[in-house]
Order: sequence, then structure tokens, then C-alpha cells
Amino acid sequence: MTDTNPALVIEPLTAESFRSFGDVIEASHDARHFTINEGFAERYHDLAQVDVATGGGRAIVSIFKAKPRTLPMRLLLLERHPLGSQAFVPMSQRAYLVVVAPATPHAATPDVGAMRCFRAEPGQGVNYASGTWHHPLIALDAPSDFLVVDRGGAPGDHNCDEYPLGPRAAWIG
Amino acid sequence: MTDTNPALVIEPLTAESFRSFGDVIEASHDARHFTINEGFAERYHDLAQVDVATGGGRAIVSIFKAKPRTLPMRLLLLERHPLGSQAFVPMSQRAYLVVVAPATPHAATPDVGAMRCFRAEPGQGVNYASGTWHHPLIALDAPSDFLVVDRGGAPGDHNCDEYPLGPRAAWIG
Repeated sequence: MTDTNPALVIEPLTAESFRSFGDVIEASHDARHFTINEGFAERYHDLAQVDVATGGGRAIVSIFKAKPRTLPMRLLLLERHPLGSQAFVPMSQRAYLVVVAPATPHAATPDVGAMRCFRAEPGQGVNYASGTWHHPLIALDAPSDFLVVDRGGAPGDHNCDEYPLGPRAAWIG
Repeated sequence: MTDTNPALVIEPLTAESFRSFGDVIEASHDARHFTINEGFAERYHDLAQVDVATGGGRAIVSIFKAKPRTLPMRLLLLERHPLGSQAFVPMSQRAYLVVVAPATPHAATPDVGAMRCFRAEPGQGVNYASGTWHHPLIALDAPSDFLVVDRGGAPGDHNCDEYPLGPRAAWIG
């Protein structure tokens, strides 16, 4: 890369490190869980704030089939969903990268200097809180499927803002 | 098995064969889909009827860690959730079995003779419609994780009926 902007550090994804951006969806020992089905299953219960009711929204379930990216890569834009949360849970057992910046509820643009990059390990999902700026999900190594739980609304709803990074384009090395 | 009851036939899981019980959640060519993220992802959109609002419910996201069963196995009970749908999507790339019987909205008991068993292939999820009778999910071969999208409500809500099969216990060979 010839960018003079510094590369984002790739941090481990933990509930604590991700807290200001949303939830980590994982079957961790810290999560509330209980045994069901006569001992044949353990339920790790209610792992994300599914926040989709604003403006008459409802929860919908979709699958994203993502093509892998190769590193180093340049990050050209961020987006946010002002009306609802958006959860991604890997259906393929592969790691992927999550790039976020803090929600800015009263301003149109993200704080690019506050961008963070997290490496999600297989079995870890994320739920972006409503308004959290994020780069599109970054699959690694191979095509990867994700279950997505986000907001379905009326056709005219405005639930996506995009912000091109332009000369402030960040990159991941 | 010494049961005199006949074994359930294991059928392939398809949207058509499962329609009267709920939805198959999969990235099939028939599903509405469109390209996003500048060509790096395909979104298979709104694949299940998430029906959780009855009685003030909301969508919640959980993970079930299921222990595998060995065949042949006896099916001892069915259950249903009268207040909401329940979706299971495999996070482990393994097949599993789904056993259902038609919803009986005005009666307390399922039609045991109408039970069906479907084999879900890796990448296929299911969404039980509210009221559909079902056996707890049957993982095969190895411990398997599932993302679950179902109804969260108030502590006193009655959202699970169980029906012990007793002498009518079915089995899968």
C-alpha cells in the first residue's frame, strides 16, 4: 500500500471491546444459559439487542453470501442503519473482520479517527447497534455465508447512510 | 427397536415439502436476492415469517448447543409455541433432523399420525410457524450449534405446550 494513512490494528473481538458498537453473539460461559431438551441442548439466551421496531419495523432473517477479500485492502466507505440494529452470525466456520466507528446520532459523518477493526473467530457473531458506522463485512479465505437479522420496513424508509472515506481511506494490512 | 409403531420416513427438506409447517431458510436460487457491497455480497432477503409480536413479544437471538443423537432413536414428546415462530439456522456445517406435526390451533393435542421427519442438509435452516408441533431438534454425528430466532416475552407468558407421545412413541431408524 502507498497510503500514508496508518493501517488499522486488528484487535481480538470480545464483548467488552465491542460493547460501545453493539453485541458479540457467542455461546460464552458468561452468557445466561440453561439446559433444555432433557439434557440434549444448552440454550445461550437472548444474546443481542434486536432493536428494529422504530418506524414500524419488524425483524427479518436473511442470508448474505460474502466473497472473500484479500489483505492488504483499502476501506472506501462506511455505512450505518439509523432505524435498526443488524446482526451477522457466521454459518461457515471461518474467521472474518468487522470494522466499525462510533454512532453519531446527531451528525451526518463518522469520526474516522475512531475506527476500529476486530477479528471475529469462527462461532462469533456481531450485532451492530442502530447508528453504529461500519464497513461491509469482510470475509476472509473463502466464500462465507452469514445469517443476518435486521430491520424490515416500508419501501420508502431511509435506513442506510453511506459515507465515502475519500482521501481518508483507511486500510488493513 | 421393538416398537410396533412404524418408523418415520426421513424425507428431504424442501421449501415445498415443509410449507405447511413453516419456512426453509436457505440461499436458494428461488429466493429473492440482490447484490450489495459493491459486488462482494449477495443478499438472500427476508427468508422466514418471523411472527413474534403476539402478546407484546419481540424477536430474540440465542444459540443452542445441541448434543448429537444416535439412530435408531425413539421420539418421546412433541412441543409447540402458541405465541410465536421459532427459527433454527445451523452454525456448524452438518446435517440434522427436523420432526414436525401440523399445528392444531383449537385442540390441545397433535395429530401423531401426521408426523413427518425431514433431513436438513448443511446450510439449511428451518422456521417453525407459530403452533407447529415439533420434536426438539435432532443433531447428528457431532455437537452442533444453531442460531435461534424466536419470541421473547414477559416471564408469565405461556409459550410452550408439551405432549408426551407415551405408547404412541414414534421412532426414527
